Amino acid sequence: MKLNDRGLLVVISGPSGVGKGTVRKALFSMNNHDLVYSVSMTTRKPREGEVDGKDYYFVSKEEFLQRIEGKQFLEYAEFVGNYYGTPLDKVEEQLDQGHEVVLEIEVEGALQVREKAKDAVFIFIAPPSKKALYDRLKKRGTESDEVILSRMQKADREFMLAHKYDYIVVNDDVNNAADRIMAIIRAEHAKTERTIHTYMKLLKEV
Amino acid sequence: MKLNDRGLLVVISGPSGVGKGTVRKALFSMNNHDLVYSVSMTTRKPREGEVDGKDYYFVSKEEFLQRIEGKQFLEYAEFVGNYYGTPLDKVEEQLDQGHEVVLEIEVEGALQVREKAKDAVFIFIAPPSKKALYDRLKKRGTESDEVILSRMQKADREFMLAHKYDYIVVNDDVNNAADRIMAIIRAEHAKTERTIHTYMKLLKEV
Repeated sequence: MKLNDRGLLVVISGPSGVGKGTVRKALFSMNNHDLVYSVSMTTRKPREGEVDGKDYYFVSKEEFLQRIEGKQFLEYAEFVGNYYGTPLDKVEEQLDQGHEVVLEIEVEGALQVREKAKDAVFIFIAPPSKKALYDRLKKRGTESDEVILSRMQKADREFMLAHKYDYIVVNDDVNNAADRIMAIIRAEHAKTERTIHTYMKLLKEV
Repeated sequence: MKLNDRGLLVVISGPSGVGKGTVRKALFSMNNHDLVYSVSMTTRKPREGEVDGKDYYFVSKEEFLQRIEGKQFLEYAEFVGNYYGTPLDKVEEQLDQGHEVVLEIEVEGALQVREKAKDAVFIFIAPPSKKALYDRLKKRGTESDEVILSRMQKADREFMLAHKYDYIVVNDDVNNAADRIMAIIRAEHAKTERTIHTYMKLLKEV
């Protein structure tokens, strides 16, 4: 019996190259879950085959700026001239329906969310070591040594922000990491602050 | 990779008749765990077949009172003329070895432990409803209606203490409850306050 019917907002974050996307995919491929992935809103033009409301919510710059003004984003950022953000109303809707909404975002965005969603669960995905992170960035083969160095420097700053998260999960093995996140979600649903209200109501029944 | 090597002290508690013992047994029968059960100390005489250090640590009343004096119990209580307690040193030893030490105790004892072991995990086992608890006490068939009524009244007082626990787990299905407790243990090991220290050391390695 679940005493907490509302879904959880689960923020998966960590430095670039740590494997957030791979962990998230492993998580979604598990059985018996009610996870949904939060669809971002963007001002960038849809690419061929991209579906509005599935890949992104595609909106005009004007609409996006209005939404920023109206504090309608959990987090947003500008990236090479386009805006990207997580629309608050869509997330709330899903949580009310009892889905766990997973956000896979950069550290900077996660800290924005922290301020707005006090009851969200923040998980920092950490590499098993600095060397492992370096090797992974190198292996991608898509970036110059200079870019890799700059990412490592950014990662160094981000490592220092891990204490702002609720949990630290090391991505030494992607399935282990996904298992641990699933355990965190189950445990959070049993937390007293999320369950006490329903529980007290339950006891009033004869 | 586990960032927290120390075991957890897991306190499983709840009203009489809620099925704490059954849940604990289901938990211990699961695979891949490192749970140990804390052996109590008592001044009562060993019954036939009971082994010192396994069923109980059997000690004299003098020794028990000395240990109370020396604050060497996580919790203790007197029951029909005999003392029963959880010896602190034995628990610490097991935790240092990395075992999760499970205490299955009454609500009163659990609140004593809360004061002494700040980093322990407190799980309140709740019945799916008051009626379910009543039915279960009735079904045992070992107690008079009067005793059952007095247990229900005690349960009413204990229900109001659930907010002092970290988690509330409903025992509607014993395996579900055990699964949820296992998830709590896994999640607690990933909590930032338990992992940040090792994690920061890890990052200092080149």
